[in-house]
Amino acid sequence: MNLDILAIAAHPDDVEQTCGGTLLRVSWREALDIPDGRVENNWENRLKVARVIRQLRPRVVILPYWEGRHPDHYTASKLGYEACFLAGLAKLDLGRALSAQQSAFSQVASAVASVVTGEKQGSAAETLAPHRPFKIIYATLYFDIRPTFVVDISEQFEARFESLMAYKSQFSDQEAGKDIFPARDEIRARIESMARFYGILAGVTYAEPFLQKEVGLVEDVTAIPVKSI
Amino acid sequence: MNLDILAIAAHPDDVEQTCGGTLLRVSWREALDIPDGRVENNWENRLKVARVIRQLRPRVVILPYWEGRHPDHYTASKLGYEACFLAGLAKLDLGRALSAQQSAFSQVASAVASVVTGEKQGSAAETLAPHRPFKIIYATLYFDIRPTFVVDISEQFEARFESLMAYKSQFSDQEAGKDIFPARDEIRARIESMARFYGILAGVTYAEPFLQKEVGLVEDVTAIPVKSI
Amino acid sequence: MNLDILAIAAHPDDVEQTCGGTLLRVSWREALDIPDGRVENNWENRLKVARVIRQLRPRVVILPYWEGRHPDHYTASKLGYEACFLAGLAKLDLGRALSAQQSAFSQVASAVASVVTGEKQGSAAETLAPHRPFKIIYATLYFDIRPTFVVDISEQFEARFESLMAYKSQFSDQEAGKDIFPARDEIRARIESMARFYGILAGVTYAEPFLQKEVGLVEDVTAIPVKSI
Amino acid sequence: MNLDILAIAAHPDDVEQTCGGTLLRVSWREALDIPDGRVENNWENRLKVARVIRQLRPRVVILPYWEGRHPDHYTASKLGYEACFLAGLAKLDLGRALSAQQSAFSQVASAVASVVTGEKQGSAAETLAPHRPFKIIYATLYFDIRPTFVVDISEQFEARFESLMAYKSQFSDQEAGKDIFPARDEIRARIESMARFYGILAGVTYAEPFLQKEVGLVEDVTAIPVKSI
Amino acid sequence: MNLDILAIAAHPDDVEQTCGGTLLRVSWREALDIPDGRVENNWENRLKVARVIRQLRPRVVILPYWEGRHPDHYTASKLGYEACFLAGLAKLDLGRALSAQQSAFSQVASAVASVVTGEKQGSAAETLAPHRPFKIIYATLYFDIRPTFVVDISEQFEARFESLMAYKSQFSDQEAGKDIFPARDEIRARIESMARFYGILAGVTYAEPFLQKEVGLVEDVTAIPVKSI
Amino acid sequence: MNLDILAIAAHPDDVEQTCGGTLLRVSWREALDIPDGRVENNWENRLKVARVIRQLRPRVVILPYWEGRHPDHYTASKLGYEACFLAGLAKLDLGRALSAQQSAFSQVASAVASVVTGEKQGSAAETLAPHRPFKIIYATLYFDIRPTFVVDISEQFEARFESLMAYKSQFSDQEAGKDIFPARDEIRARIESMARFYGILAGVTYAEPFLQKEVGLVEDVTAIPVKSI
Repeated sequence: MNLDILAIAAHPDDVEQTCGGTLLRVSWREALDIPDGRVENNWENRLKVARVIRQLRPRVVILPYWEGRHPDHYTASKLGYEACFLAGLAKLDLGRALSAQQSAFSQVASAVASVVTGEKQGSAAETLAPHRPFKIIYATLYFDIRPTFVVDISEQFEARFESLMAYKSQFSDQEAGKDIFPARDEIRARIESMARFYGILAGVTYAEPFLQKEVGLVEDVTAIPVKSI
Repeated sequence: MNLDILAIAAHPDDVEQTCGGTLLRVSWREALDIPDGRVENNWENRLKVARVIRQLRPRVVILPYWEGRHPDHYTASKLGYEACFLAGLAKLDLGRALSAQQSAFSQVASAVASVVTGEKQGSAAETLAPHRPFKIIYATLYFDIRPTFVVDISEQFEARFESLMAYKSQFSDQEAGKDIFPARDEIRARIESMARFYGILAGVTYAEPFLQKEVGLVEDVTAIPVKSI
Repeated sequence: MNLDILAIAAHPDDVEQTCGGTLLRVSWREALDIPDGRVENNWENRLKVARVIRQLRPRVVILPYWEGRHPDHYTASKLGYEACFLAGLAKLDLGRALSAQQSAFSQVASAVASVVTGEKQGSAAETLAPHRPFKIIYATLYFDIRPTFVVDISEQFEARFESLMAYKSQFSDQEAGKDIFPARDEIRARIESMARFYGILAGVTYAEPFLQKEVGLVEDVTAIPVKSI
Repeated sequence: MNLDILAIAAHPDDVEQTCGGTLLRVSWREALDIPDGRVENNWENRLKVARVIRQLRPRVVILPYWEGRHPDHYTASKLGYEACFLAGLAKLDLGRALSAQQSAFSQVASAVASVVTGEKQGSAAETLAPHRPFKIIYATLYFDIRPTFVVDISEQFEARFESLMAYKSQFSDQEAGKDIFPARDEIRARIESMARFYGILAGVTYAEPFLQKEVGLVEDVTAIPVKSI
Repeated sequence: MNLDILAIAAHPDDVEQTCGGTLLRVSWREALDIPDGRVENNWENRLKVARVIRQLRPRVVILPYWEGRHPDHYTASKLGYEACFLAGLAKLDLGRALSAQQSAFSQVASAVASVVTGEKQGSAAETLAPHRPFKIIYATLYFDIRPTFVVDISEQFEARFESLMAYKSQFSDQEAGKDIFPARDEIRARIESMARFYGILAGVTYAEPFLQKEVGLVEDVTAIPVKSI
Repeated sequence: MNLDILAIAAHPDDVEQTCGGTLLRVSWREALDIPDGRVENNWENRLKVARVIRQLRPRVVILPYWEGRHPDHYTASKLGYEACFLAGLAKLDLGRALSAQQSAFSQVASAVASVVTGEKQGSAAETLAPHRPFKIIYATLYFDIRPTFVVDISEQFEARFESLMAYKSQFSDQEAGKDIFPARDEIRARIESMARFYGILAGVTYAEPFLQKEVGLVEDVTAIPVKSI
């Protein structure tokens, strides 16, 4: 199988909040969970996430921005990046490497993996060929940094908001659920303002912000969007 | 008429050197000249460049980067930007405004205007409707700054080099011609290295670097070029 | 007289849009007008704005940020700053200096001056003592830059919006009025999103962003607002 | 108990050197010690520092800046930050979590904890309610970075210097004591210059520099200190 | 004649304050004066400063940093830079160009020119060959910016301070003299702290800070000064 | 023994690629190897690299830049830096500390250590006196960042290229060898372009870029290389 996009994050609704609209422009997702405050970027976790990447073979990986208030977010960002690197090493036999770490149980199940467009391979495959994603981009919402680009989610905005609300009601009895999030109207106002703010930067109604480390490559300068003046 | 791209620069071969390959991906250019070291960003010159913009009605304007070693370059950048702004003001009657300045002859004819794709209107039109370019981008070659994006000029590189050499032989008896530019082989080696350096950043052979002030807007995150890892 | 705050800007509603809520936390304002696209930072205009500063003797001056899309905004910023400097020069006799420039009429009346808390002196005073404002801050709304601080305008937001709408209806037949500003609902949505975005940064509902060049000075570290984590 | 300020650092006199004057504007401190060059940001140490935070319940935590020459300093900064985060997690039972790590003895006792204004709880409490500090600021002295703000320590400067000298004589036979610090007069000249340099930035005699990650929130723009011009 | 260093600044003691120690490591200086608050970067002033550069033919030019509180400082910086450029243009006949501007008397005599090591040509030479300085560096003292390098002035510090005091007593009845500068002891303390602060950055006692725009070129990496760790 | 320069990197030809020309201006090197993708910055590895530093006693240490695409590179950078710090701690007995870690075999042999000018001590010395390198600089080639300075390698360029080719043929059957590196001509073109690009910045033919964290210290301002204008 070959996925289009894999979004890696630390918590159930992180993906919904930071790049849910962008994912809705494609089609499907699922999430794994880990205990709050416990993401570690260690060898075993890198191997586990690398295995997911070899199974799903995404072209694009979306990671949290590498700084932020929540340690789980910036640690998941580094963990995800280094796992992408490991997944592409031809000589690394993930099955053998993970067995060698088996006795030491990870306290982190694996990090959230949101899978888009396609189906996950049923079991941990015994023969996982190396795979390195072509593109890694960082979701920068909530991180007080100028994005490289935004994605127009004007048509996905309502569906994304409903999807986030569904998550919240589902996980409301979980840790951090009750006190962090205010009531629905207030959530709506905040999320809409953020999306609209990034939309204004690009001349669309709602948008989600992202950063890429590479310089861009433009095919046709007469087709670059966003008015300058 | 409606142009695709207008490149504004201070000297005959500035355009060739900084965005010649990008222009060759489209079709045609011409250049005006001004005395070296004398570009001024004043009201009269802004009106004159604004008139060219209203005549040619470009969608994209390429300007020199707004810092640099040569005062003509950074002044032309500001002059060009502010002229783009003036050209779009509905209430500004350029014919009347220029007449009011007529007695004070500008020492600057108008700044280099490289016209691409289309034909220039024969005479200074009496009825020039307001026009504001959609996009302004800055050519950053030679300016020691990270570009926002590059344009692949691998197929245009040889033609661009020959075009630059043609300029040099044509203008070689002019000021600055003789001592700034070394012999052909050395020019070739330097120009090729610069183009290849920016190409390496984006995974192509030769490229020219540009900067845009706006954030980008991406239609399809699975189609973003340039490998991350 | 000694004013609290003087806001200098280029256009009738610039002050309303960028620091109207902050001014409403105090009490009163008025505005002068200049033709769009024509602000010049020259000696005569600096003298004229310096005279206003010596008349009104403000403690704080609010200027537009020194970069931006609109040349009038960034030029007004530099003009205002240099006028603040001139206003404080003990040996500069503004009356004599302005007379010397009298024959050359400025095309710029004076730049918008929004006067808060107090009354403007009726006529150009013959004896204007030197005055240098204590503090200069820059309104950064619409300028894509991280503010140093924001001001909570939650209680002033509605009044500020109505005041902006009043301006718009009053000036709607003026240059640039019709096409720049979309309908009331759309304006409301955009302005609210911007104010809320900056509010979120500081944990309040609505805010306006500002930048100061100096480092801050904190009296009591246990009283610094805005939650860190 | 509820502390005002808790300063976390890596070495006995780090607090004295970087924020001693600021702490003297309040009232009391104490310090723990760790072996030089051995601070590790691992799970066990985060739990231990989190326990101190839950015991002392500070409103403000001062951390070393997150970059610097000494690995202990930047590691203590990250350790302190992530401990603040853990201390606030409602579902984290620190007693149980620490017992689970008991067999693996930390080589790091706990990191220096300087306690101001109040008394430390006698023993490791069995019932430690979650607590997240309201504000985290970073002491930037010696780190070659522009501070967000400084604190005027003109009245505390002499007491701070004597306190630092007392530390030095007390610890002079310890590691790093002898060779790093030159004689008293030289120390005096250096410390005074640093304090005066930061004082000059804000128009006071002596000051200590700090950085906060959040934007500021200003109640009254006419009361902002530090002259602009 | 060929000078070593030419320092261009706006006011009598600007050079003393920002690079006086560096100049004392060489040998001689003189200064011209201009009215406070009146430096303009216009064509005529650029020609005048260019003439001084062609007369003195310096290898190094020291300019004020291009930002700052005082408009004279940052304007003198731009004026000096563009004059360096003009001075090197082979086709520019300064005598003829200045005559053409003769009727319009400049209100600025020429900008301070501090001449080091050598003697100034008696009169405005009729045959001034083009000359472009090899190196332009910027004095950054008082400008709140990280310098590229500092110059050790430990042995020149006392002579520089006395020289500055001599200036002050000489110019004390001039504009800006009385209120800007506090008493001698306070001046001494401030100037010593600034010099010592920059000295600490490089491991020497007193230093003056400078910035260069170019990357450095190191001959021998084992001879780079300033301890890293 | 006392080395001049020690280059620490993660992979066999990293040193050749990023600072090979600079090392050839001196005399000798050797390299250790580690498995690709497995560099860890942990206590044991820091002790091991610290032991090499105490044995070789280099004045200058060259490290990879602390960011980059390859995790081994940025991890080796931090590992090397912290090892330099540990190597200088007077109270740290490396022999005893390493014995305490002996049972836990490091999966990382030690990180590449390129030794220049001198001979390595035959065995792990029992009496290794503390040593802290005077200078740490970072090789920034391939890392898309402005260097502090470059080193002219025009005379070393050919020897460096042949040395890199020798490495490649020797290691071509190793992991990462086949697919990362294109054919010889393409390698030549890329490496030459990079070296020439950095050469152009400083006015030499070929150069390698480096960054230092400290400000510079200039002995003679008239001798600073690299033309400004």
